[in-house]
Amino acid sequence: MSGEDDLIDRVVRRLAGGRPPRGGLGVGDDAAVLPAGADQKPFLVTTDLFAEGVHFDRRLAPDVFIGWKALAAAASDIGAMGGIPSACLLSLGVPRGTSGTVVEAVFRSFGEESRAIGAPLVGGDLSRSAKGLILDVVVLGRPAGKRPVLRSGARAGDGIWVSGPLGASAAGLLSLQKARRRTGRPWRPSLRAASPATTAILAHLRPRPPLAFGAALGRAGIPTAMMDLSDGLAIDLPRLCLASRAGAVVSQAGLPVHPAAAASLGRAAALRAALGGGEDYELLFTVPARREGALLRLAARLAPGCRRIGEIRPASAGLRLLDLLGRRRAWPGGGWDHFARRARSRD
Amino acid sequence: MSGEDDLIDRVVRRLAGGRPPRGGLGVGDDAAVLPAGADQKPFLVTTDLFAEGVHFDRRLAPDVFIGWKALAAAASDIGAMGGIPSACLLSLGVPRGTSGTVVEAVFRSFGEESRAIGAPLVGGDLSRSAKGLILDVVVLGRPAGKRPVLRSGARAGDGIWVSGPLGASAAGLLSLQKARRRTGRPWRPSLRAASPATTAILAHLRPRPPLAFGAALGRAGIPTAMMDLSDGLAIDLPRLCLASRAGAVVSQAGLPVHPAAAASLGRAAALRAALGGGEDYELLFTVPARREGALLRLAARLAPGCRRIGEIRPASAGLRLLDLLGRRRAWPGGGWDHFARRARSRD
Repeated sequence: MSGEDDLIDRVVRRLAGGRPPRGGLGVGDDAAVLPAGADQKPFLVTTDLFAEGVHFDRRLAPDVFIGWKALAAAASDIGAMGGIPSACLLSLGVPRGTSGTVVEAVFRSFGEESRAIGAPLVGGDLSRSAKGLILDVVVLGRPAGKRPVLRSGARAGDGIWVSGPLGASAAGLLSLQKARRRTGRPWRPSLRAASPATTAILAHLRPRPPLAFGAALGRAGIPTAMMDLSDGLAIDLPRLCLASRAGAVVSQAGLPVHPAAAASLGRAAALRAALGGGEDYELLFTVPARREGALLRLAARLAPGCRRIGEIRPASAGLRLLDLLGRRRAWPGGGWDHFARRARSRD
Repeated sequence: MSGEDDLIDRVVRRLAGGRPPRGGLGVGDDAAVLPAGADQKPFLVTTDLFAEGVHFDRRLAPDVFIGWKALAAAASDIGAMGGIPSACLLSLGVPRGTSGTVVEAVFRSFGEESRAIGAPLVGGDLSRSAKGLILDVVVLGRPAGKRPVLRSGARAGDGIWVSGPLGASAAGLLSLQKARRRTGRPWRPSLRAASPATTAILAHLRPRPPLAFGAALGRAGIPTAMMDLSDGLAIDLPRLCLASRAGAVVSQAGLPVHPAAAASLGRAAALRAALGGGEDYELLFTVPARREGALLRLAARLAPGCRRIGEIRPASAGLRLLDLLGRRRAWPGGGWDHFARRARSRD
C-alpha cells in the first residue's frame, strides 16, 4: 500500500507516549520484540492481514493455497528477524454464504503449513466478514541467537545479500491471470512435466521462505540487518536503509533473477519483476566483509541461491542501481526521492 | 456466528497432529497460553477480528469509537484468563478511497485505549481491504497469578458469578439504531444529562472490561474457571460448562440486569438482553464456597456489581434456568440440546 510507511511512521510518533515494553521495539521491523524476563530470550510476534481481492484472488487458484501462503508469508517475518516460529494463531473472517468446504480447505492447508514449519496453531477467532475471506495470521517465535536481527544495524561497507532468486512470484501471478483469461477457470496443478510457468506459479501460490537459513544466520550472528522481501527489493531495500540511516549501491549484474521468471517473462520484464514484483519472501540482509566466509559456508548448505547484490554506503550517498554497463541509474520505484529526503533529515 | 464452536471443535481435532507447545493449550480458551521457559510465567495471546458491517457499523457512531472498542474487547480476553495485558498489535485493512481522517481516528482511539490499559502498541500491519474497515487486534499478556485461569476448571458445587450488570450493550445498540433511523445521521455524544439510553449506548460503544478485577481474581487464585461474556450468557455459559464437562443451574432472580437496559427496554426485553445480548465484556467465573469470602472482599473494592447467579452441577444435570417463581425452564438460545449431546458424549 503506497503511503504505508508514512502512515505507520506518523502513527509510531503519535503513539510514542505508549512506550514499548523495556527491551522491546516499536513498529517497523518485520516482527515486534517482547521481553520475556531476565536471562530469557524475547518473544517475537508478527500479525499479517491477508484479504481476498487484495492479497489473493480466489478466481485464480484452488482455495487450498490460501492457508499455505498466508502462514508462510507471516512466518517469513519471524525468519527475517533470525527467529524460529514456535506457534501461530489464525483469525478467519468468512462472508455469508461461504461453503464449509472453503473454510475447511483454508484450515487444512494452514494446519499443514503449521506442522511443516513446527509452529502449532494455538488459537484464533472465527467470525463473519462483510465481503471476501479475511485471514489475519499471528506468528510467535523466539530468536535463534541471543538477540533478534533488526533492520537497523547495516553499516557502510557491509555487503548486501539476498537469500535466493527473485521475480518468480510476480511472473507466476501473471501466468495465473493469463490462464484464467484463457480457460475461464482457476488454474489447477497438472501432472505434466513442470514448465517454467508452473514453477513460477508455485513460487507465487506456495512460497517457501528460507526459515532455516534465517534462523541459522541469526544463531551465528552473521547479519548486521535483515528483513524479508515481501514488497520487492525496490521498496524493501529503502526501508532497510532508512532504518539503518544508510545508503546503498546495488549492481544489476549481481541480481539473481529467477530463471522461471526470465523464461516466462523475458529478460527485461524479469529484471523488473525481480526488483519490484514482491512476494518472493527471500531474505535481504547485510554482512560485514569479515563474516562473508561464515555466511558462504552456511549458504552452501541452506541457501545455494544466496547472492551478494551490492554494498551499504553512507546515507549521503543515497541509493543507486548500477546497470549492466556499470552506469548509475536512479533507484526504481519512484520512492527514492522521498526516502532520500527523510534519510538526510535524520543524518 | 452460529456453528463457530462446532467448526473450531472440528479444526482443533483435525490439527491435533500439530500439538501445542509444552505447557501451552489448544484453541478454546479466551487466549492461548505459551510457555516462556523454566520458572517463567507463560505468555497469553489473543487475536480478534473486528470487521465493519459485521462487528461495527460506521453509520451508527463516530469512527473514534472503533479503536477504543476493538482493543477493549480483545484485552478482555486477557483479563478473562486472570492476566494482565502487556502489549498489543493492530492489523488494519482499509478499503480504497478511505480518508486519512478515518485511519487516524481509529489509530488515535486505539492508542488511547492502549495507554489506558498499559499495553503499548508494538507492531501491526496496514493494508487494503476489499470492503469496509477491518481490524485484527492481537493482545499479549502474562497471568497475574502463577497460572492462567482456564474455562475448564469448574466443579459441581462451585458458585457461578458475573462481575457486573448485563444487557446494557444490547440495549445501547438498539438505541443507536433508533437514533440513526430518527436523525439519518450517526449518533453523537451530547452534553445533556446522561439518560439511560446514553449510558447503554456508551456501554455498547466503549466497553470497560474489568481488567483489574480479572487480574486480581487470577492473582488470588479464586476462580476455578473464567471467561468473558462476549456472546452473552446464553451462549457463553454452555461453553464454560462444556470445557469443564459440567452442568449448571442459573437463577433468573439473581441475574444482575443493567438498570439502563431495564429503563430503555422494559423488564422482559432487558432480561433477554442480559441473557443473550452479548458484548457486555463482564467476567463469568466459578468459585468454590470456601473462597466466597475472599471473592466478596475483592469485589467490594474492584467490582461492586459482582453477583452470584447460580451453581455448577454435574454434567448429567444439564443446564437449567430457574424463573422468578423457581420453575425450571429450558436454557435460552436453543443451543442447549446440541450442547447436552456433546457434554454427555464426553462424560
